[in-house]
Amino acid sequence: ADMPAKAQACVGCHGADGNSVSPIFPKLAGQHAQYLENALKAYRDGFRRNDMMTRFAKGLTDEDIKAIAQYFSSQKAK
Amino acid sequence: ADMPAKAQACVGCHGADGNSVSPIFPKLAGQHAQYLENALKAYRDGFRRNDMMTRFAKGLTDEDIKAIAQYFSSQKAK
Repeated sequence: ADMPAKAQACVGCHGADGNSVSPIFPKLAGQHAQYLENALKAYRDGFRRNDMMTRFAKGLTDEDIKAIAQYFSSQKAK
Repeated sequence: ADMPAKAQACVGCHGADGNSVSPIFPKLAGQHAQYLENALKAYRDGFRRNDMMTRFAKGLTDEDIKAIAQYFSSQKAK
């Protein structure tokens, strides 16, 4: 799957292919799409607190979140 | 690396090799060891809230946490 536009915001920390640049940011590549979707919704809706993630997730629709989760989940974990 | 005794508690949800059984539990296999360590400490010390994870992390020492993080990080992500 090619990268949804809204996933651009994730690349800075999580890497273009989800193998995050720094060990303090979790790898998303190959992670369960459902888990990524739940996490993004939790950040967006305030059930999971992380200032940066909440800011990024704020404007996302459910469709955006599903596409982003699918994209990173489909990447190869390195 | 073979599985540290204290990692036994994680297997039920995250799988013996860190490729978690259900899509609602994150895969740990191949994740950054530093990220796993930070997450476990955050659960233990109350910076990250999850009833189940906090209960599991409560009794872990820093050494336990490092060993568990190293173990799952060294597993192959599937």
